[in-house]
Amino acid sequence: MTDPSTVLPAIYSFPPLYTRQPNAIIRRQQIASWIDLVLAYCKSQNFWCMTLEGVPVDEYNKSRISIFINSEIQRSVPQVFVEEIWSKMCEEGKAMGTATGRKDSSQYYVLWRTLDSWASLVLQWFENSGKLNQVVTIYELAQGDETADWEFHGMPEPLLAHCIKPLCQRNRATLIKDERGKPVATKVV
Amino acid sequence: MTDPSTVLPAIYSFPPLYTRQPNAIIRRQQIASWIDLVLAYCKSQNFWCMTLEGVPVDEYNKSRISIFINSEIQRSVPQVFVEEIWSKMCEEGKAMGTATGRKDSSQYYVLWRTLDSWASLVLQWFENSGKLNQVVTIYELAQGDETADWEFHGMPEPLLAHCIKPLCQRNRATLIKDERGKPVATKVV
Repeated sequence: MTDPSTVLPAIYSFPPLYTRQPNAIIRRQQIASWIDLVLAYCKSQNFWCMTLEGVPVDEYNKSRISIFINSEIQRSVPQVFVEEIWSKMCEEGKAMGTATGRKDSSQYYVLWRTLDSWASLVLQWFENSGKLNQVVTIYELAQGDETADWEFHGMPEPLLAHCIKPLCQRNRATLIKDERGKPVATKVV
Repeated sequence: MTDPSTVLPAIYSFPPLYTRQPNAIIRRQQIASWIDLVLAYCKSQNFWCMTLEGVPVDEYNKSRISIFINSEIQRSVPQVFVEEIWSKMCEEGKAMGTATGRKDSSQYYVLWRTLDSWASLVLQWFENSGKLNQVVTIYELAQGDETADWEFHGMPEPLLAHCIKPLCQRNRATLIKDERGKPVATKVV
């Protein structure tokens, strides 16, 4: 369990950040600041997914604390404001509801790179590792030893499939699905 | 001229940061946030020195803007609060008056690493490049091709001399001075 205040910049413990600012222009800056913090936290800790409440979701299901609750200064972001932050993140392509890709979701993928930027990185891996024109499973791509040094390593498979979609649109990749429609592999050309 | 708001995180444009918080505990967090911003800005732009007003000082004397004035949101940090920020930075070893090393100065060196950490880095360079037991001028160390890839490259010479002092205290270095007492070279053993 990593306390966000130990890895985030000092501003994370600046109390005015926790009070929803009534002025819309000021609130826009405030939301932008929160988005910076969420992205920086997830990137530094390699968290791909968070609950609506701001608790990182990981495969080991460790009990973790919400980024929106700062025990050091005993402040927390009101839930309605938290929802505004997620909504803005989704709008800007910096988060994506896990189930539907919609704004109202109980869990969000956190995108510290845009989908397009992740797509370029995946493409680069295929080119560098000589895997063009071969079928590679999404599991291999996410978990295999050959991607260990790449930033997308460890990404949840459904998110990784999303990241390949921009390549499909550019006719650089096809996604191979199982009988339920779940992407299981890809071929990049 | 780089506008700080283009390189700093969103929080830089969060207006409450510009109002000196009356509550001492909150102000402590606020000052810590400003220190983060000053260090991040100087590090990202390779600025070693700033005026009391927060304007980067560089050899080309370009006209630059103060980090404490945010034209995007038309806010600025009151001068008395700016002085509090510098004072705290000096206390924490994150800034140093250029002339006297004292807190009240018209210019400050900004230390995004501590003096000790810079000293270790300089020592590492001497070890890696086989320059132990040789006299190396401070100028070479700061400006020479051989240090081009090192973070201390380009550091003002008087600051670099300060960074060598911890090595002198550990009997790993001697500073060679000119007739006026200005350090001009060093020998690391």
